Amino acid sequence: VARPTAAVLVTGSEILLGLTRDRNSGFLGRGLDALGIDLRRVLTVGDAEEDLARALGELRLHDLIVTSGGLGPTHDDRTVAVVAAVAGVPLVLHEPTLEAIRERTAIFARQRGLDPESFVAGNRKQALVPEGADVLGPVGTAPGLLVELGPSLCVVLPGPPSELERLWRVLPERPAFAALLERAGHLQRRMLRVFGQSESAVADAFAAAGGDGGGTLTTICARRLEIEILIRAEPSKESAFERLLAGLRERLGTAIYAEDERPLEAHVVERLHARGWTAATAESCTGGLVAARLTEVPGASDVLLGGVVAYANEVKRDVLGVPDALLRDVGAVSADAAKAMAEGVRRVTRADAGVAVTGIAGPDGGTPEKPVGLVYLHVSSPAGDAARRIVFPGARTDVQQWAATTALHMLRQAAAG
Amino acid sequence: VARPTAAVLVTGSEILLGLTRDRNSGFLGRGLDALGIDLRRVLTVGDAEEDLARALGELRLHDLIVTSGGLGPTHDDRTVAVVAAVAGVPLVLHEPTLEAIRERTAIFARQRGLDPESFVAGNRKQALVPEGADVLGPVGTAPGLLVELGPSLCVVLPGPPSELERLWRVLPERPAFAALLERAGHLQRRMLRVFGQSESAVADAFAAAGGDGGGTLTTICARRLEIEILIRAEPSKESAFERLLAGLRERLGTAIYAEDERPLEAHVVERLHARGWTAATAESCTGGLVAARLTEVPGASDVLLGGVVAYANEVKRDVLGVPDALLRDVGAVSADAAKAMAEGVRRVTRADAGVAVTGIAGPDGGTPEKPVGLVYLHVSSPAGDAARRIVFPGARTDVQQWAATTALHMLRQAAAG
Repeated sequence: VARPTAAVLVTGSEILLGLTRDRNSGFLGRGLDALGIDLRRVLTVGDAEEDLARALGELRLHDLIVTSGGLGPTHDDRTVAVVAAVAGVPLVLHEPTLEAIRERTAIFARQRGLDPESFVAGNRKQALVPEGADVLGPVGTAPGLLVELGPSLCVVLPGPPSELERLWRVLPERPAFAALLERAGHLQRRMLRVFGQSESAVADAFAAAGGDGGGTLTTICARRLEIEILIRAEPSKESAFERLLAGLRERLGTAIYAEDERPLEAHVVERLHARGWTAATAESCTGGLVAARLTEVPGASDVLLGGVVAYANEVKRDVLGVPDALLRDVGAVSADAAKAMAEGVRRVTRADAGVAVTGIAGPDGGTPEKPVGLVYLHVSSPAGDAARRIVFPGARTDVQQWAATTALHMLRQAAAG
Repeated sequence: VARPTAAVLVTGSEILLGLTRDRNSGFLGRGLDALGIDLRRVLTVGDAEEDLARALGELRLHDLIVTSGGLGPTHDDRTVAVVAAVAGVPLVLHEPTLEAIRERTAIFARQRGLDPESFVAGNRKQALVPEGADVLGPVGTAPGLLVELGPSLCVVLPGPPSELERLWRVLPERPAFAALLERAGHLQRRMLRVFGQSESAVADAFAAAGGDGGGTLTTICARRLEIEILIRAEPSKESAFERLLAGLRERLGTAIYAEDERPLEAHVVERLHARGWTAATAESCTGGLVAARLTEVPGASDVLLGGVVAYANEVKRDVLGVPDALLRDVGAVSADAAKAMAEGVRRVTRADAGVAVTGIAGPDGGTPEKPVGLVYLHVSSPAGDAARRIVFPGARTDVQQWAATTALHMLRQAAAG
């Protein structure tokens, strides 16, 4: 049996013009795939009514349409009206939604000292729904909607990612969506994440493990210095799925550092926690990025004490205690400086582990001996020292991101023991 | 006369599945708009041949189709073959491209110690182009292509953003693209960026300045605590364009902090530079994000000396000199702590200006008096002190990003004098 197919419709002229980045389609892509629904296309259009209506009409060949955005209070938020028109039903006022929105905007108006009267028209507009729609939420000031659109089920979600994500999670409880899921037949799904191997080495391991010959569906994707291997399989192919996983684990060994989709930073925090270590960062060319990425993880405060952004040599010397002679004779971009920085930040913060990054992010400052992209990294910990010298290709922010990613992996590896 | 219309086709199952983020459609959206071309839709599809062919067929109603991705050496890179099939022309080997790719992969193989023979088939595949195509580059190992596709011009570009962006810049020199641009009639375009005003205040100023009544096209977009006002106009509407700009400048005054599209961080660095100030950061809940964002700007090293990520109280005390009594009696999340952190980082780095952030990013750690999202910010500089207390809504990373953005604006305002 064929899996249900889906399309995502992202609306908003500001996204089309590249002023705002769409964060929802990636979330929906992962979410649909995890539910066993076959996402075929993502379409982004502006706010014009005819563009929206045309897009919805085209996408009705799919079992499911998920829209994002266009639910706000202003005249150029047109998604609900267009969905109703395409469905051929009138808009009706949904009283419980109006009440919920009124409460929220009243609080907002009070906090900001704004006139609550100015919200009346907008509140009313946001509480209009296509007749017969199943109404979700609202979690912000816009409800989510499930609307029958001819052969398709159309799920209408608000644009703010946190609102969209919260409404997404309650969808499987709604009868129309649950009925679709019954036809979906969950795919088995596993992500193997590999660090420190080339894409071709991973491709070789995949082939040697039998590849997709047993009916699995594998996507191998290089990103951010990692290789991600996403393996999916129909429930009937479970033994092939397990065989491929076992074959890859055998061949790639500890290069597989995770089998889930949580961010690298969460794995670093977890390993530090398991080891009972605190950590601190000493950053030059990454300027705080390693610390900032670790700080994104809830609970990072259990293991990250802090760090020093030592961009100027004086800060390396005065705050981290890197010797003047070292900076003068060997230079700030050197293995010795990275080591002294890692040790220095351990000393001043009394952290168990220190990780240091120093390099030349560019675009200027390179020399034949020390080109743009040259980065030295060092981890100093109770488990000993680890050091790397890498020349990263790419633009300034690429060098910074890759250097930070490498530093995080080195910290993870040190803590993994 | 109608402007030429365009569609962007983004290819790649890894993008559709949400494993990789598409960075190209935003770049192309901004680029097309700046050239006066009317982008109507962005479509993302996977690597399956029938999905690509169908998408290209549908998009041929536009004057221009720009594709991104699917030009690699492996079997699932199918864009060129499908474009040729839709155009009804055979693939032919483009010798100069093959020669350029050979040179590049030979260097790459040597650097990594890989067998150059393993690249022969891939090189040849990447040098196949639709007969009659205009060939751009390559700048990586994939060329860009201009292909006549019935009524449309199809521009085929590689997926890696740095390659796509470089080839995009040479497009206007190619005859087929230049012919399209002649019909485009450059729009006048100006972005006003506003900080510290509500969206409704900006909407009021826009209305009072006459709105789009004179034939301008204005998009008002709230993002990252800013309001962006993008004003566009046909060349014939120049006086309305200038009148609207003048009216907004008069009403919004210094709330307009920039009239270009460069990142906020670049404006902060520029103001510091103009003022002759160095700066340093002291960050708790943002964990280095303020410093990292400043460091993204080329030349940041002229003004940013460094900073301290003082996540643990011990680091606030030992590295920044925040008094123990203050931390004990008033707490680390307080106006006093923020002030002491800003002053402390000025002292230890000898920077002219210090900016400090301390708060509760969540999801845990909030109390009724100090809820999740509460952030204290402080700038200490030769121009005096500035302090703010804000409760940001949203998830942990939102609180962190918004707090960092506010800190950057406060530093900018201090340096602006």
